Amino acid sequence: MAGKNQDKEFVKEITNMEDDFPRWYTDVILKADLVDYSSVKGCMVIKPYGYAIWERIQAILDAMFKKTGHTNVYLPLFIPESLLNKEKEHVEGFAPEVAWVTMGGSDKLEERLCVRPTSETLFSTMYAKWINSWRDLPMLYNQWCNVVRWEKTTRPFLRTSEFLWQEGHTVHATAEESEAETRQMLNIYAQFAEESLAIPVVKGQKSEKEKFAGANATYTIEAMMHDGKALQCGTSHNFGQNFSVPFDIKYQNKEGKLEYCWQTSWGSSTRLIGAIIMVHGDNRGLVLPPAVAPYQVVMVPVAQHKAGVLEACGKIYEELSRDFRVYMDSRDNYSVGWKFNEWEMKGVPLRIEIGPRDLENGQAVIVRRDTAEKVTVSLADLAAETAKLLDMVQASLFERALKNREERTTQAQDFQEFMTQLEARPGFIRAMWCGEQKCELEIKEKTAATIRCIPFEQEQTGGNCLCCGQPAQHEVVFARAY
Amino acid sequence: MAGKNQDKEFVKEITNMEDDFPRWYTDVILKADLVDYSSVKGCMVIKPYGYAIWERIQAILDAMFKKTGHTNVYLPLFIPESLLNKEKEHVEGFAPEVAWVTMGGSDKLEERLCVRPTSETLFSTMYAKWINSWRDLPMLYNQWCNVVRWEKTTRPFLRTSEFLWQEGHTVHATAEESEAETRQMLNIYAQFAEESLAIPVVKGQKSEKEKFAGANATYTIEAMMHDGKALQCGTSHNFGQNFSVPFDIKYQNKEGKLEYCWQTSWGSSTRLIGAIIMVHGDNRGLVLPPAVAPYQVVMVPVAQHKAGVLEACGKIYEELSRDFRVYMDSRDNYSVGWKFNEWEMKGVPLRIEIGPRDLENGQAVIVRRDTAEKVTVSLADLAAETAKLLDMVQASLFERALKNREERTTQAQDFQEFMTQLEARPGFIRAMWCGEQKCELEIKEKTAATIRCIPFEQEQTGGNCLCCGQPAQHEVVFARAY
Repeated sequence: MAGKNQDKEFVKEITNMEDDFPRWYTDVILKADLVDYSSVKGCMVIKPYGYAIWERIQAILDAMFKKTGHTNVYLPLFIPESLLNKEKEHVEGFAPEVAWVTMGGSDKLEERLCVRPTSETLFSTMYAKWINSWRDLPMLYNQWCNVVRWEKTTRPFLRTSEFLWQEGHTVHATAEESEAETRQMLNIYAQFAEESLAIPVVKGQKSEKEKFAGANATYTIEAMMHDGKALQCGTSHNFGQNFSVPFDIKYQNKEGKLEYCWQTSWGSSTRLIGAIIMVHGDNRGLVLPPAVAPYQVVMVPVAQHKAGVLEACGKIYEELSRDFRVYMDSRDNYSVGWKFNEWEMKGVPLRIEIGPRDLENGQAVIVRRDTAEKVTVSLADLAAETAKLLDMVQASLFERALKNREERTTQAQDFQEFMTQLEARPGFIRAMWCGEQKCELEIKEKTAATIRCIPFEQEQTGGNCLCCGQPAQHEVVFARAY
Repeated sequence: MAGKNQDKEFVKEITNMEDDFPRWYTDVILKADLVDYSSVKGCMVIKPYGYAIWERIQAILDAMFKKTGHTNVYLPLFIPESLLNKEKEHVEGFAPEVAWVTMGGSDKLEERLCVRPTSETLFSTMYAKWINSWRDLPMLYNQWCNVVRWEKTTRPFLRTSEFLWQEGHTVHATAEESEAETRQMLNIYAQFAEESLAIPVVKGQKSEKEKFAGANATYTIEAMMHDGKALQCGTSHNFGQNFSVPFDIKYQNKEGKLEYCWQTSWGSSTRLIGAIIMVHGDNRGLVLPPAVAPYQVVMVPVAQHKAGVLEACGKIYEELSRDFRVYMDSRDNYSVGWKFNEWEMKGVPLRIEIGPRDLENGQAVIVRRDTAEKVTVSLADLAAETAKLLDMVQASLFERALKNREERTTQAQDFQEFMTQLEARPGFIRAMWCGEQKCELEIKEKTAATIRCIPFEQEQTGGNCLCCGQPAQHEVVFARAY
């Protein structure tokens, strides 16, 4: 079953992203075997290859959290209705999209329990119990868990009724400290996105309309996908005392006086896998940054039936496995061409081909997934070359994504220009805004673009609101978004 | 606030286990800061120190699973009622104790969803979709997740409405392979319990009455707690074709014929933390096996206000941290005695004390948590001695637990003797059994003891059933259990 036809068939299964981006996305996640649909409406099944990416994301982020003094805990899945109701904005934001447990076994529950959409209320009840004195602060906790938000339209990784995430919840003695924590965690998300996921992000603040229900301020990192749509990749919220007052979270300060605490929360989710796909993927499938790729290298023995090939490859595999995550594909029922295509589809950063002639010459061929460049290297240098190439792939994925974002970032002075940009070249549009929700809503209604953030780095100042023409308050970044 | 009184107060807070074991247990989990109660009935909050033990358990078990070819996936939290109903015994076993979601937002759901109590049915629907040919087999998946079983009486770690666990689900081409997998995973649990948790276990098969709902055979590891009660620490189930037939999981064999698959599942949970507490703990609190202790060593500087002490300790801490999980307790608002007691309560295997005189002499004092033995070692040998002592603690915890189990394991020839043993020295009672459920139920009713397992290693053969006096089928292990 070898040969060219088979190979062509394989790639033909992916829709071109230029033709139909949503369908390209669906093709890639299914063909690369990341997820599957389940019989539970709106919920996804994360398959081994998709889950392995999540495990890499977890390992790196978790280490960053721990290095900055955070520890993991686990709070219950269920939140009693009365608890959810304690903070007004929060319940209004989340109640419409929660799943309610009303029966335990065959008994009707006295009080409905919601399946956590997020855990501010539960953390707050515990913090009220745990915090007494300034010595208990800051309290820096995080949990890795599942959450449920009852979504009407869903898409794997991007929007599902259940998803996996981490939610950090911290408590501080002063407003300054909670603000510093909120910004620190946003910077950690940004660093992780740029260094590990090779995804450049715009850091900024959400508008009042777009901020988290219950927060004073929400900071966000926003990334640009290949189709010109934005994706929010992580958010960090400063709650001020919005939860500490209704939940009565107080501490005794150094002078012995009781004061309300200051809180933050911050979260990132399996959505990041969607970002990886839509930022780096191409018409041959997934392209994974080496830092989070389940396999950084796939070894494909060529003419593996010939004497000595598999043994020699096995030895090289053992050596490379000491430093890298390597998979050796020695399946005997697929052609080499089929394997090349399959692993390209799965986005493995480097492919190493070794056949009888390579072995004779003491060399191997390394092929980059991102550029398709081939180099022949001596076996003696294989590990060093692999390390070097992985670094190059990681760096050049970032550069390519940055270039795409820059090409897709424009400025607009007025609504006319805004509309033209949005249709001609969808992406981030930087424009001035008066700060009024009326204008924000009007633009959303007319264009489906939303304010992604008020970027920390303001590139324009002064000027007038692109919508109402009144004097502007900030530069904001607009985009249509997932 | 230093001195002897303070130190005594600290320990007085734990009830003696000989006086009231359940209360001792509760005291230890709260004082060692492992968990807290939540406002959600029957659900626990796992605090940082408790969760860190779980992270150690996860890391070790996960590596063992991966080494034997298993990979992680994630399936939805919810199971539609119709799906749960597909395997008769399974639904009868679990339906009485599930939580039902009936509302999404403000809409009533068309079909109720249960919050997964275990995921055989969901895995089976996916397997039916994923498996086509013998080349797809075996399929060896696992997931780490939360599950919910609506319990009437709960106790942290031992029985809670929500708990964390891993559930492995595998599919095989033949009955032999599924049997081999079921036994392999039981052996992995046993090896983990004995080597990492230092808990000796009895391996055996559950009786028909005690086996998992839907399984042909359930294998178990059973451990003996300090109070003479047994605790099931992990189970592995061979389903035969009980799920593959109703869920239509078939594969094409090498001859091209369709055949039903063979399945297993296996699980272990946060309950293991309960086992650690009840096997190793003492009247001064928790005692943790080094392999799963969040901190293997706590360093307590003595007279830390004296010049040079903290600096020198800091350097030693850096060095030790390369090889061990170390915590340096340099809090300035607690006495050294308070710290000693607190870290004993928290069960840290080794304490290293270093004061000005030690530094002058180039030495440190190491104290074992399990035996309270003190040794003075030169700083040059500190890392080597620490490694040696950690190994010794790990080994001697196992020996001590084994001795306790042996002292609490007796044989009984008839019911009279059985009752005497059970009252005089609660523990495992090995006795002969005819194999009839009537006798099993009668004994349970009269004594509250259950058949923990039919041990793989039969120490007695022949003889008569301790209940009915008829010829016996097996030796079984009875105990009262958690």
